Amino acid sequence: MKTCRIVGAGDFCTTSLNRNEDSFFIAADKGFKNLTDCGILPDLLVGDFDSLGFVPEFPNILKYPVEKDKTDMQLAVEYALEKDFDLILMYGALGGRLDHSLSNLLLLNYISKQGKKGFIISEDFVVSAITDGELIFSDKAQGVISVFALGEKAEHVTLRGLKYTLDDALLTADSPLGVSNEFLGQKASVSVKNGTLTVLWFGSLDNCLSL
Amino acid sequence: MKTCRIVGAGDFCTTSLNRNEDSFFIAADKGFKNLTDCGILPDLLVGDFDSLGFVPEFPNILKYPVEKDKTDMQLAVEYALEKDFDLILMYGALGGRLDHSLSNLLLLNYISKQGKKGFIISEDFVVSAITDGELIFSDKAQGVISVFALGEKAEHVTLRGLKYTLDDALLTADSPLGVSNEFLGQKASVSVKNGTLTVLWFGSLDNCLSL
Repeated sequence: MKTCRIVGAGDFCTTSLNRNEDSFFIAADKGFKNLTDCGILPDLLVGDFDSLGFVPEFPNILKYPVEKDKTDMQLAVEYALEKDFDLILMYGALGGRLDHSLSNLLLLNYISKQGKKGFIISEDFVVSAITDGELIFSDKAQGVISVFALGEKAEHVTLRGLKYTLDDALLTADSPLGVSNEFLGQKASVSVKNGTLTVLWFGSLDNCLSL
Repeated sequence: MKTCRIVGAGDFCTTSLNRNEDSFFIAADKGFKNLTDCGILPDLLVGDFDSLGFVPEFPNILKYPVEKDKTDMQLAVEYALEKDFDLILMYGALGGRLDHSLSNLLLLNYISKQGKKGFIISEDFVVSAITDGELIFSDKAQGVISVFALGEKAEHVTLRGLKYTLDDALLTADSPLGVSNEFLGQKASVSVKNGTLTVLWFGSLDNCLSL
């Protein structure tokens, strides 16, 4: 699968990345510092560079004005979608300013609605969004998993193999019905038939079998 | 205005609360520790007490089973709505686990759709949700303000007196169009005519004139 890894300025787990991976790396603004701090040079640098504070001398750079409609992470995601990457992994996308974290969660909705797979990887947990689709988890997954409708209503939501199952349920952004579910040490699945569902689980991406 | 203050287990700014305020105080589970740490006893204690780790000896307590559909914060909010409080202020509602933070942001949608005013107060910023309504800010407000549609589409969104204005715009949960706007030191307003809008601004509740 053609994979793009985007690194932002948020909390960043350096151990989860190395340059040997067959990925295209984009640094979004101060994500450049996050990435180079762990010895990796990006393939592309995107942003207005207000948070980094300087424009690096770098051969492959897309520099935008500070006064723009889109966030640096959004510009990086749009680049990845234009170049037809199937899988977009965002790092350093959470844990800083809450508005930036929320903004990055909405980008998962956007990626999913374009028919691509998107994941935010943080130190402790992973977030994804699925549209009219399914995520399947291995029996190695453990701990908490939560599902949210962050957007239009999510219809026909089915949760299997988890502590609390749902069958063909409706989730809306007015109620946190799907928070704090739990893996049971067995194969599990989360699916939605009409709408977009945000799925957050503690652990790693490896426990998700849907890649 | 009949005010209920609910304290949860998240990051908590002790300086923003005192017992002299004319409020009903609810502690949600480990929020009991947050609240008593600053010398305030709640009027009501709500939760399953799994995060606090023990059930306090307390005269006014609503104890729920651990295996329930709703979060402790949600039970406290529902209590406040049943008792017809007009203004619900949530503290310690952000900064812990991201799924809990998201869940509490969705509770703001819920409060707003019930025709009541809800705010999450954290150390640095305030979040609210408005449905078919308006928030007005004084010229003392400064720094960043972001607006999001976390839910169904928000139609006829108008931003005035901010660095980037919007006039009768459509916001959806697929794009973070309203992130990182700025106050300009003048009176400002955020309004939506059809839908619910999440509004997050750095600073205090005092700068919001809509109470």
